[in-house]
Amino acid sequence: MAKSFERLQPMDRASHVIDVQIEGRRVSSIRPTAEEGFPDGPPARLVFPGFVNAHTHLPMVLFRGLADDVPLRTWLEQYVWPLEKRLTPEDVYWCTLLGIAEGIRSGSTAFVDMYFHCDEIARAVEESGVRALLSYGMIAPSLDAGGADELANTRSLVKRWNGRADGRIRVAVAPHSLYTCGEDVWRESIELARSFDVPIHTHLAETRREVDDWKAREGTSPVQSLDRLGAFSVPTVAAHCVHVDEADIDVLASGSAIVAHCPKSNAKLGSGIAPVAAMQRAGVRVALGTDGAASNNRLDMLEELRAAWLVQRAHIEDAASLTSADVVGMAIEPARSLLGLPAQGLVEGAPGDLVLMRTEGPHTTPAHDASAMMAYASQSADVTDVYVDGKPLLECGELRTIDEERVKSEVRRLLHRIINR
Amino acid sequence: MAKSFERLQPMDRASHVIDVQIEGRRVSSIRPTAEEGFPDGPPARLVFPGFVNAHTHLPMVLFRGLADDVPLRTWLEQYVWPLEKRLTPEDVYWCTLLGIAEGIRSGSTAFVDMYFHCDEIARAVEESGVRALLSYGMIAPSLDAGGADELANTRSLVKRWNGRADGRIRVAVAPHSLYTCGEDVWRESIELARSFDVPIHTHLAETRREVDDWKAREGTSPVQSLDRLGAFSVPTVAAHCVHVDEADIDVLASGSAIVAHCPKSNAKLGSGIAPVAAMQRAGVRVALGTDGAASNNRLDMLEELRAAWLVQRAHIEDAASLTSADVVGMAIEPARSLLGLPAQGLVEGAPGDLVLMRTEGPHTTPAHDASAMMAYASQSADVTDVYVDGKPLLECGELRTIDEERVKSEVRRLLHRIINR
Repeated sequence: MAKSFERLQPMDRASHVIDVQIEGRRVSSIRPTAEEGFPDGPPARLVFPGFVNAHTHLPMVLFRGLADDVPLRTWLEQYVWPLEKRLTPEDVYWCTLLGIAEGIRSGSTAFVDMYFHCDEIARAVEESGVRALLSYGMIAPSLDAGGADELANTRSLVKRWNGRADGRIRVAVAPHSLYTCGEDVWRESIELARSFDVPIHTHLAETRREVDDWKAREGTSPVQSLDRLGAFSVPTVAAHCVHVDEADIDVLASGSAIVAHCPKSNAKLGSGIAPVAAMQRAGVRVALGTDGAASNNRLDMLEELRAAWLVQRAHIEDAASLTSADVVGMAIEPARSLLGLPAQGLVEGAPGDLVLMRTEGPHTTPAHDASAMMAYASQSADVTDVYVDGKPLLECGELRTIDEERVKSEVRRLLHRIINR
Repeated sequence: MAKSFERLQPMDRASHVIDVQIEGRRVSSIRPTAEEGFPDGPPARLVFPGFVNAHTHLPMVLFRGLADDVPLRTWLEQYVWPLEKRLTPEDVYWCTLLGIAEGIRSGSTAFVDMYFHCDEIARAVEESGVRALLSYGMIAPSLDAGGADELANTRSLVKRWNGRADGRIRVAVAPHSLYTCGEDVWRESIELARSFDVPIHTHLAETRREVDDWKAREGTSPVQSLDRLGAFSVPTVAAHCVHVDEADIDVLASGSAIVAHCPKSNAKLGSGIAPVAAMQRAGVRVALGTDGAASNNRLDMLEELRAAWLVQRAHIEDAASLTSADVVGMAIEPARSLLGLPAQGLVEGAPGDLVLMRTEGPHTTPAHDASAMMAYASQSADVTDVYVDGKPLLECGELRTIDEERVKSEVRRLLHRIINR
């Protein structure tokens, strides 16, 4: 049965208002109407094929707002790590559903995740109807010191879940970072990714200290080291890339890397400001991610794209850099390939992934330009409908695949248990 | 008749859940309940006495999203100024109401404004029930070259409106800036403010170029020049203060200045990053403002306080600086004195200004800490109720004093008229 959506405004200044139809799992028709779009027509709903959250740790919504203003090491050692040890697989399932619910409500249709207890994360993804590139974060100084077991875990995760849920679930190989995984672990990881034809997902050049320490010890930058290991000969999502120089940027631009820029996490943890404008000029594919809610504290891609713009422009003092179209594009397009999605989502025949947003609020009135509205004015509460693979996940503001009240109550209960244990 | 609000969580980690009562125009009772606050109790609503938007140009919501990604001069000369010339007093009335509606919906109870056609702005403030410190932005190179007329306008505005609407409206004297008003205009302005016992409202040290040019010509910084003129011997709201050095900060800390920090506007226009952490350490009273929607594009103080935190921490690379309590405090407290409000709003006998926010959304679950929730997770759509002077302006998400549909439609119509003229 076909579903029709009328009077929609794509993220494109020039275009007319369109009508869109989904049939089965696909976009079956896109027709321009006679109506003018912004600024002359009456407000239509915004339409886009969904944000791709290019780097996150979904279950970490549990730690949202817990000990926010302490240095990174204190936060990890005194709060996060001790509590993470207490998490059961079922805990991870409920927390993942909470993260997905927040993501859907703010227009995300796909997530690139790294965590543990991944079978439960996959189950939450399967049931909730979103897309995800999942991965188990491996930490091992060498193959002998735990690395072989970590890789075996990843191998079996790929076999169990890659391509499942009608192709909505994909699995990546995730050595946590260059400084937490030994060279032999990295070589095996890249080989595993190549043999299964899946991406690598890792953290790269996040803090100044990490990069300085690496350079002092190895005589080269983390980006150069990863390049020599061959990481950029397979599709690699590199989260952060805050402290990269011109030579690093050339490497990232010439290889298969997709940088997952996480401006709010980098701000919150005091990591710094990634050279996004320079990376874009050099041709690096820069996507956007929220990182985990513990260091954000939201999984809201609208907030993230606004932060990307805000921090970058303030930093480089140039009002004409990183336009609204740039940041909206970053939040939607570069990471689509990781999920097996075609480059363009709003075309006939593309998978039926759609997000609709209201535009008649006081905060989006008057309407001048669709991408400026999204980048600088819209808020996640404006998201009314979300479809993935032709299936409604949110309709008129109501979640269709997640029992939100149950999920919130389970998360509150488990938090109480692990904190008071 | 008394109104009671139950199960509220103040912005204070230690406290219990409270019940609050308003009688007439005052807070008549605040009682702690037996219930624990976050994190152990079930979610209560957040309560605070309202954000004070310490620097804005309310009617400029009209230009929201119009030509966002062009340099400042192009934007002013080709877009804003030609259109502003076409604004009638009635246009300004409707645009002000739209700005106030957005402000109420995001938890603001008071606005520090500077624009023209101020009688219409005052009328909108009076009818909508909010508080405002209004001012007419004077631009004149000298008393002889228009300055005397500008000051006469201001004098009559003070006489007509200062203290009106049960004291909700106050008027400031507003020489637009040091570089757009001559020295004699400034001296008369300060004298006028002193004689009427009202504040000064101005723009100060906003862009690098403005400050460099001034120093090259005058041999001293704008802050030092204003100090010599005597501006800091009366209460002065100084918007921006982006490019200030240590000596400037000492001046701002020792005088009567309230700095209105506008991080989003400073980012959007590429003006730079104000040294907020340094100003706070030195004892400067730093408030928060959105500036006009044309350079923001929101009048949302929650977005603003989040941006203040985000940009500052990213810039100084310190995860322990500018805590959630700091930024929440900036958005609420320092500018209250400008409206004649007591330092503390949540005490018995204080004016009945209250904002209530939901906390049971997926994005605010689980709840660990009230100020962390507000600073890092809450969104304006969580604001459910707003009271000013004991009167409801928003109840259960419905505006009570503004006909929002009418206002939006009038603004769309007038925009069409002035753009297509």
